[in-house]
Amino acid sequence: MIETLSAIVGSANVATGPDAAAWARDWTGKYEGVPAAVVRPASTDEVAAILRVASEHRRAIVPVSGNTGLNGGAHAPGALVLSLDRMRAIRGIDTAARTAEVQAGVVLADLHAATEALDLIFPMTFGAKGSARIGGMIATNAGGSNVLRYGSMRHLVLGLEAVMADGRVMRLMGGLHKDNTGLDLRQLLIGSEGTLGIVTAAVLKLAPKPRAFATAMVAAASLPAALDLLNRLKDASVGSVEAFEYMPASYIARHMAHIRGSREPFAERHEVNILVELGATAARDATPGPDGRIPLAALLEAELEAALEAGLVLDATVAQSEAQRREMWTRRENAAEITFTGEAVVDTDIAVPLSAVPAFFDHVRPAVAALDPGATDLAVAHLGDGNVHYTVYPSREDPGLFAAIRATIDDTAVSLGGSFSAEHGIGLSKLEALRRLKDPVALDAMRAIKRALDPQNILNPGKTIP
Amino acid sequence: MIETLSAIVGSANVATGPDAAAWARDWTGKYEGVPAAVVRPASTDEVAAILRVASEHRRAIVPVSGNTGLNGGAHAPGALVLSLDRMRAIRGIDTAARTAEVQAGVVLADLHAATEALDLIFPMTFGAKGSARIGGMIATNAGGSNVLRYGSMRHLVLGLEAVMADGRVMRLMGGLHKDNTGLDLRQLLIGSEGTLGIVTAAVLKLAPKPRAFATAMVAAASLPAALDLLNRLKDASVGSVEAFEYMPASYIARHMAHIRGSREPFAERHEVNILVELGATAARDATPGPDGRIPLAALLEAELEAALEAGLVLDATVAQSEAQRREMWTRRENAAEITFTGEAVVDTDIAVPLSAVPAFFDHVRPAVAALDPGATDLAVAHLGDGNVHYTVYPSREDPGLFAAIRATIDDTAVSLGGSFSAEHGIGLSKLEALRRLKDPVALDAMRAIKRALDPQNILNPGKTIP
Repeated sequence: MIETLSAIVGSANVATGPDAAAWARDWTGKYEGVPAAVVRPASTDEVAAILRVASEHRRAIVPVSGNTGLNGGAHAPGALVLSLDRMRAIRGIDTAARTAEVQAGVVLADLHAATEALDLIFPMTFGAKGSARIGGMIATNAGGSNVLRYGSMRHLVLGLEAVMADGRVMRLMGGLHKDNTGLDLRQLLIGSEGTLGIVTAAVLKLAPKPRAFATAMVAAASLPAALDLLNRLKDASVGSVEAFEYMPASYIARHMAHIRGSREPFAERHEVNILVELGATAARDATPGPDGRIPLAALLEAELEAALEAGLVLDATVAQSEAQRREMWTRRENAAEITFTGEAVVDTDIAVPLSAVPAFFDHVRPAVAALDPGATDLAVAHLGDGNVHYTVYPSREDPGLFAAIRATIDDTAVSLGGSFSAEHGIGLSKLEALRRLKDPVALDAMRAIKRALDPQNILNPGKTIP
Repeated sequence: MIETLSAIVGSANVATGPDAAAWARDWTGKYEGVPAAVVRPASTDEVAAILRVASEHRRAIVPVSGNTGLNGGAHAPGALVLSLDRMRAIRGIDTAARTAEVQAGVVLADLHAATEALDLIFPMTFGAKGSARIGGMIATNAGGSNVLRYGSMRHLVLGLEAVMADGRVMRLMGGLHKDNTGLDLRQLLIGSEGTLGIVTAAVLKLAPKPRAFATAMVAAASLPAALDLLNRLKDASVGSVEAFEYMPASYIARHMAHIRGSREPFAERHEVNILVELGATAARDATPGPDGRIPLAALLEAELEAALEAGLVLDATVAQSEAQRREMWTRRENAAEITFTGEAVVDTDIAVPLSAVPAFFDHVRPAVAALDPGATDLAVAHLGDGNVHYTVYPSREDPGLFAAIRATIDDTAVSLGGSFSAEHGIGLSKLEALRRLKDPVALDAMRAIKRALDPQNILNPGKTIP
């Protein structure tokens, strides 16, 4: 089969043995294992040809995009990896329609650069933007820091092309805002983590590039106070709030300890630190007034002032330069670096209704302490989405303890009307939670759809669908 | 079986024979046929019990909601109709989370009234709001006049409950903004027109009620000029444009002829008439200035002024009162009444990329005239979505001619990168277009999913999936 694959993509683009070892380890270091072979197609046709071969040989295929996932979705020991890293063409950007057509291997930061040169943005962003690729982002329905304003990947994909298990290509690349022609297979594939088809290209929604930003670090009096501030800002600015990111005191401390040259956001250490950003897309919001401030910054300052007087806010710093804004963002975007520092870790990705975020922390900390009094924790949250990345560092390496801690965190979220999986996908690490907590009728429907579209179970088998 | 069904819902809620005749005719009058029986459950449990009976007897079920569809999706001659009209409970409105939990039979206008009493809106609206029900709107992924700002039904459903073919209940009622727990079965069911499951309840996204509106009728110099104006307004008001509705001169003429007491929008008849509305949700947009105007109305007037000077706009009237605003909206919302006036009609629901709307009209009119020189036409469009309802009144009743005209309109849209189905669903009338124009791999995937989830083919058989 390796020979057949070499004939499709060229022998330089098939790696086996030691050459495949570059794909042996994922970013977190938790999922290790050398693939049997790695094949690197350059086009949709090549992906289709590979799938036909895999289908004929009933050989499992694990698609890998940027390999920045946190849940083992691309784990492939002894398997055949299909890497999309050569499919990085930005086929076109339509400035009038505000859409971009891209191959699945385009790196997020490259798309950012290409669109911004045309005064547009592809609005999704997160820490791994320098390595994450569009295909993986679609496969996991990625989120990030701007979901509040622009939505998840699901809301940003207008068209999609995918190769199905039998090697046939499904082309749904219309870039229309209204298109109802039968079952929405685009939405079914988004978030399916390569289990139903391999996404090879997409038409993505772009947005006008903000002309300016109003960005601040805010020390809120409490989590409920921070949520109150969020609602005030959303209502006052009509959807211009792009990010509302929560970093507790323990996050600031860990950031100071792990990142050289990092600084405290405030003179005093506060419990509830919020990075808030508003984006000014309209001229009326972005044209500086006599005092040099843009109207949206004046609005932010006025709201922070009012919140300070109302006791919701203890301290706040509005960025006065792009350098100050960058420092605020870098602190937030270092989350993955300071979370995965080599220690054994239980990392999670839960979401709860906004009003339940304070209760989540109130419930989960004693529950974890009851299992492991020596454990420490770390949290960072897209507070505007109710999405908390809550991480525990257990005091001892005990797989049973790790599983118990993870289950406790997931159960706490679900008991508050939340979800055990917000934006990182299921992969391997959340399979057990899915089996335990997902509606059983939905689980059966997922299995039936998987059997219908991939009867030989060759597409990323053993992931996402228990 | 009727006895068993009567035992489930009570005999008063099972109609047969002449009593079932009330369900014999749909709103358009194009799809006639008396159902064998109509069963009217009051709860999800009753729907589940009915589905278990239908499954046991391999008996087809056609779910009917408001019966306002235009494509025969609820056509059920000789079949068993499951009417959701008794399931009209608004279970709760969460003002903090801005969500509503409703049964599938809630009438859209009733939800409007309930939310507006709490200073919130369920933002979707269209002409049939007094009869259309939430279940049917979810089943067809309904659109309407506010999609530009708030999105289609697909974007407004956070949680969903459905009864599957075997009578089991799938509960996905979380109201979270980020929730990725395996395949997105909610999105798969939205737009599936009752072929995969029967939606019984939903959690819907609400929005702040606009404090004021800025509404105008605009005579644009041309369609490209109108699209230019749309982009100016969108960029200047940051997503406050709620509606941008196109009515050509022929629409105005037909409206004058069919609606008693209707008035011309302008002293002179213009070719390109646009209803534009901006919604002011923020205090800074809605607080009247010294001249009594709200800032968003001042912005609209300034943009119209500039567009007039630039030659994009020929005339414009800004509504000065709610009564004037209502008159503008009533003219638009009468579209269905003036389209379906008893004559034989080819009604369509196409979408094209925004920039292709002028070309669509340039191409389609001569193509229809070539088939039937005596045909007349009518158009009305959600111009901001590229969604045109283009209707032809052929000069003679000839089924072959009707089919040829429909195919020509669909083909024209698709040849311009568009879709033959934007917001009304597939039902029966677009099945042929779907078979002809949809990607064949996608069609096969749709069929495979249908077989997987409804192996006995009892859920609305013969609709939506060719």
